[in-house]
Amino acid sequence: MTSSFRRERLQDLDARDPLAAMRTHFEIPAGLIYLDGNSLGALPKRVADRLESVIRHEWGEGLIRSWTQTDWYELPRLVGERIAPLIGAAADEVIATDSTSANLFKLAAAAVHMRPGRKVLLTERGNFQTDVYILESLASMFRGGIILRVIERPELIAAIDEDVALVVLTHVHYRTGEIFDMAGVTAAAQARGALALWDLSHSAGALQVDLNGAGADMAVGCGYKFLNGGPGAPAYLFAARRHHEQLRQPLSGWAGHARPFAFEDRYEPASAMGRFLCGSPPILGLAALHEALAVFAGVNMADIRAKSSLMGDLFIELLQPDCARFGLTLVSPTDSRIRGSHVSLVHPQGFAITRSLAAHGLICDYREPGAMRFGFSPLYLRYQDIGRAIEILRHVMTEQLYNQAEYQRRHAVT
Amino acid sequence: MTSSFRRERLQDLDARDPLAAMRTHFEIPAGLIYLDGNSLGALPKRVADRLESVIRHEWGEGLIRSWTQTDWYELPRLVGERIAPLIGAAADEVIATDSTSANLFKLAAAAVHMRPGRKVLLTERGNFQTDVYILESLASMFRGGIILRVIERPELIAAIDEDVALVVLTHVHYRTGEIFDMAGVTAAAQARGALALWDLSHSAGALQVDLNGAGADMAVGCGYKFLNGGPGAPAYLFAARRHHEQLRQPLSGWAGHARPFAFEDRYEPASAMGRFLCGSPPILGLAALHEALAVFAGVNMADIRAKSSLMGDLFIELLQPDCARFGLTLVSPTDSRIRGSHVSLVHPQGFAITRSLAAHGLICDYREPGAMRFGFSPLYLRYQDIGRAIEILRHVMTEQLYNQAEYQRRHAVT
Repeated sequence: MTSSFRRERLQDLDARDPLAAMRTHFEIPAGLIYLDGNSLGALPKRVADRLESVIRHEWGEGLIRSWTQTDWYELPRLVGERIAPLIGAAADEVIATDSTSANLFKLAAAAVHMRPGRKVLLTERGNFQTDVYILESLASMFRGGIILRVIERPELIAAIDEDVALVVLTHVHYRTGEIFDMAGVTAAAQARGALALWDLSHSAGALQVDLNGAGADMAVGCGYKFLNGGPGAPAYLFAARRHHEQLRQPLSGWAGHARPFAFEDRYEPASAMGRFLCGSPPILGLAALHEALAVFAGVNMADIRAKSSLMGDLFIELLQPDCARFGLTLVSPTDSRIRGSHVSLVHPQGFAITRSLAAHGLICDYREPGAMRFGFSPLYLRYQDIGRAIEILRHVMTEQLYNQAEYQRRHAVT
Repeated sequence: MTSSFRRERLQDLDARDPLAAMRTHFEIPAGLIYLDGNSLGALPKRVADRLESVIRHEWGEGLIRSWTQTDWYELPRLVGERIAPLIGAAADEVIATDSTSANLFKLAAAAVHMRPGRKVLLTERGNFQTDVYILESLASMFRGGIILRVIERPELIAAIDEDVALVVLTHVHYRTGEIFDMAGVTAAAQARGALALWDLSHSAGALQVDLNGAGADMAVGCGYKFLNGGPGAPAYLFAARRHHEQLRQPLSGWAGHARPFAFEDRYEPASAMGRFLCGSPPILGLAALHEALAVFAGVNMADIRAKSSLMGDLFIELLQPDCARFGLTLVSPTDSRIRGSHVSLVHPQGFAITRSLAAHGLICDYREPGAMRFGFSPLYLRYQDIGRAIEILRHVMTEQLYNQAEYQRRHAVT
């Protein structure tokens, strides 16, 4: 594909993009190609105004009265209501609070309580590390000899036996971008009496996630990637309604009490997902996430998924001819049906390359060892950005600009 | 004391107040007497500007780069450094993250690990409920038959025996404002081989807390009361340096790893307090708290304590003659040496009274059953505010404005 033909094709895709107008809702620095919305989503313009209002009016003028006179107290549920349609959940099945890690701890503990006698938490080797750390810690402290079993992906289904209380997997793998078969694994887990919990951190907002369609039991996810909630935004958790009244979680703080202002001596969990609240809700973070999610109103998730898939396909198609020459290894699936919204390339000097790309106006992120992740956020990226990203990548790799010694040799004034 | 003499005395106190100028750092709605800084501190003006910069520049323009190019990643420690001098801790002994409840869970679990064989968590009956709920939950899930023992305050010291791993108390009682003898109880706990953990939620920023002077082992506290960090601000935790390398906490998320970006399969806790981080730090909340704490720079905590004590004394002195007539019961100590920075009055119709006071421009808060808490935030209150608060309170009580039927009888147009 020649450069001019390619440019024309990408411009044509942009012209026909049903999401093209969404970019205007975001602050995107001029001249920057930002392929890292999978790590920190861009700022939705309306968030800055909302936070100013929350701080100056609701906090500054309303003071304590805003806990009852604004939406503060309801924000964990209101955020949940906005996330629910993005992940195939009902509004009362999702609530936002704390971090993804803390929420995983709560739900995994609840699952152990729901499956007395079963002693195993199961996950795959290479799952996002924090999920493994949390499960390991939970198992080590829990009454009754709970253990964590970490299994290679191909052996995972076979490893679900009658000792397994809970299977915990990340829907879209943080490193490779590969999508797990949520419905299939969930059914396999349930067939053996186990529960299935999905980490949606790399899925929500980028894929058509259908938790209830897949029969999932539980899920967690973060607010700052494709949901654009800002740095360290509150996370969320999901539990299927059929489980609600059995859920017992260990971080039983006052905010999750059935009557938090009655100051009763005995803890009694709030109904439904309210019981997963622990301390006072973090209003600034919740308000930012709540406002960021408003951008999704009226957006068709099928359009988001189609654009993200095509962007990934284009990225791979435009780069693949040069991968071997550049020493780049594609570790993401080429089949977009099993690939999430990022593409990862591995190179021994991946970190240096990432730095060099950034210096040339292309932001991606880096994960040890060697992986560069290029994320496609359909709400604010243009197809021409993909073309420009490939140009920059090809330039940096051809000139070996990441290799300081090589760079100096070429540009040496002799 | 006549009304004019009282006014003169309060004006004189304001004129001589070394903290008088601090009020200019806060947004205080005109005409409002805000005696609820013990529930949600007022907005420090600089916080609004800082958050605007964090959102528009650091997030909006810097995007993912701000994790390495700004203070984001260091904020939990930087906030800890600013809290440390307010609570008698060294800078590396305090870190800010998560909620008070979650932090209590982490530290109490760490304490159980440090005292193997000891099975009891001890607290007082009537401690802030969330602390009791969290301890109860931790005990119920922990390996090895851990139990929670809840003891009346007078019997507490005697109840510390060789089964006790940890004594958990709130330094200033949320309801009565009574101060525990931190040094005495800590020494008693340690004499029996137990650890002592203090909840400083109602102390930090209002009292001269001296954790290391008292030999305390651990502490938690919230950021949104006298520290003015905003609604649901991140909380903090303290552990004495002598314990740092033994601390093992269950919410072992990636942010508390020794090398969070190495993505290692095995969890290895970060040094010192860094291991208490769990998920991605909540940047909006941390930045607000960090900026709010800047207001304390150069402020003498002795001045804060002296002013808060005197305000409480004045409040009691001005009201006490009428308490019996109004049916109000003072449940806080009259001796300011054992009283924190709020005064509580109980009345069967406390809730209705609180509402009526608010309608007349006096904000306090209400805690079931029957308690109205009047908090004194020395950084932004004036002595004349105390006088005005008493006037409003006396008016509402005299006229029984909280009693709708009585109010209608008096104002009936016949």
